[in-house]
Amino acid sequence: MAPATPGLAEIYAPVAPELAAVEARLKALSKTDFPHLSKLLAHSLKGTGKRIRPALTLLCGQFYEYDVERLVAMATAVEVLHTATLVHDDAIDHSLVRRSRPTVNQLWGEEQAVLLGDYLFAEAGALTASTDNLRVIKLFAQTLKTISSGELDQAINTFTLRQSREQYIRRIARKTATLFATATESGSVLSRAPEDSIQVLIEYGHNLGIAFQIVDDVLDFVGTSEELGKPVGSDLLQGTVTLPLQLAIERYPRERAIKELFHDRGDRTNAAAVIELVRSSPEIIQECYRVAAEYCERASQNLHRLPAVRSLRSLTDLTCYVVRRKK
Amino acid sequence: MAPATPGLAEIYAPVAPELAAVEARLKALSKTDFPHLSKLLAHSLKGTGKRIRPALTLLCGQFYEYDVERLVAMATAVEVLHTATLVHDDAIDHSLVRRSRPTVNQLWGEEQAVLLGDYLFAEAGALTASTDNLRVIKLFAQTLKTISSGELDQAINTFTLRQSREQYIRRIARKTATLFATATESGSVLSRAPEDSIQVLIEYGHNLGIAFQIVDDVLDFVGTSEELGKPVGSDLLQGTVTLPLQLAIERYPRERAIKELFHDRGDRTNAAAVIELVRSSPEIIQECYRVAAEYCERASQNLHRLPAVRSLRSLTDLTCYVVRRKK
Repeated sequence: MAPATPGLAEIYAPVAPELAAVEARLKALSKTDFPHLSKLLAHSLKGTGKRIRPALTLLCGQFYEYDVERLVAMATAVEVLHTATLVHDDAIDHSLVRRSRPTVNQLWGEEQAVLLGDYLFAEAGALTASTDNLRVIKLFAQTLKTISSGELDQAINTFTLRQSREQYIRRIARKTATLFATATESGSVLSRAPEDSIQVLIEYGHNLGIAFQIVDDVLDFVGTSEELGKPVGSDLLQGTVTLPLQLAIERYPRERAIKELFHDRGDRTNAAAVIELVRSSPEIIQECYRVAAEYCERASQNLHRLPAVRSLRSLTDLTCYVVRRKK
Repeated sequence: MAPATPGLAEIYAPVAPELAAVEARLKALSKTDFPHLSKLLAHSLKGTGKRIRPALTLLCGQFYEYDVERLVAMATAVEVLHTATLVHDDAIDHSLVRRSRPTVNQLWGEEQAVLLGDYLFAEAGALTASTDNLRVIKLFAQTLKTISSGELDQAINTFTLRQSREQYIRRIARKTATLFATATESGSVLSRAPEDSIQVLIEYGHNLGIAFQIVDDVLDFVGTSEELGKPVGSDLLQGTVTLPLQLAIERYPRERAIKELFHDRGDRTNAAAVIELVRSSPEIIQECYRVAAEYCERASQNLHRLPAVRSLRSLTDLTCYVVRRKK
């Protein structure tokens, strides 16, 4: 009997061979004629992530007819692009740990992290180009424009207390949901899905991405550093205003620690106090999960219009997974 | 009567309207729905560069049949990619001035420079994708891979005195000549040139790029900060080993200032002494120009195989220009 709440391995089962092929391609990418670059690539592409984005491309590619080679190349491109953004984020934020391992900037310095990220963007572009599909290629370039403009928006708004809920959602849409939607759109386009099915999967990807990021932002407060693979409160120390913090500000408008954290820009004692405040306010956590669940519901809404293949169940299960996950 | 050594305006004359169209496209790119991003784009894309790369794409596109729109999009893409690499270079090197104007990192910080560079890479990719030409799209992704791996190679070899001439040429081939060759190849591909003509223009772009970079490296020693639009000796202070320095090391193996500069990593007094050493050694400068001229000769070698259109003269004139230029 299948458990009520399936894990990732079960969710990914319909595309397990293709996902293994993605893993093999990622590994192969680090073989270059330049040993130092190979070392950096091997470190950054090592298989410790959830691989949710390439899995989405593969799952969304199962509804119609597809060419495995191209779908695997595209899924790999999506993961490589994601990795590139993480490498740059860590360099920008001077983060030392990611996925329980030292970051590229920690091991080799920020200069090399910036250049490695550039190389990874190019590799992602090359993989996308190898699909020979112009729609997917154009989508991919737009995606990177959207993500980096979202990151820029986040960067200039750090340590700015007054930000609307709409601003937050708009930002995580750019920063995270865009790549989820690109993952689902590219998979469906490459499997020659009809346009209305493609639109259903774009909507699914977008809403799943929003829910995923909201939960990520909650975990930054309530997770443990072991689960997160990085320090708790990373966003808070960077001055990034996320939903849990917005709710804490609304609920405790006079709270000294929040004001001082934003005034003294990343003071650790104040950060610890704000984390404790959120952790000890179940209504804040609940409200975040309620909003995330709402987006998951929107994500599932139109899935019934798709052909009843095995992947369909995985897409629904993923909406439960993203709100249930602990890391 | 035409002067014996034509300037850039004269060299660019056969593609003046198209180059104006590139300038207009570059300006239009900074109109986004995000005011802060628009400000950064306007600053970085402002028309103060030589625009030699887009001019190459346009000139190489004149030999056969071409679609002006696509050629202009591609030329714009080449310049945007170049700008992206400069924005990242300046952020990595903590450079404060470029083209006599403050750098993006100087005005808005290194984080924003990294993200702006990412956005520019994506914009360059989007412009390339708009040509609908898969060969050019694939070439473009490979180019960014080559450039960033070249930059990485440079980064790990800073302050390493013993480097062979071959290593230097290989590095500037990756770092600079690749984009020159991509500029010429894309222009010729988009104008449906026969394969042998494309190969001639790739060779031309590659060799011109090598010559261009050698002269750039000489100017870093012998230019004035007004001409260069940035401080003299920038490479030297970063520990980048270029041809003039290699020749100085060969000629003055016991010179204290060079050893100390590399030991004390960027000490300004030692840097000034090394600059003076090179400036006062005409045989070093002459040897650099001899090598550059050799590459220019190789660049011109097979141009006679191309149709005799106006652009042909411009390509030849450019080989003289790159060794004659003062900035």
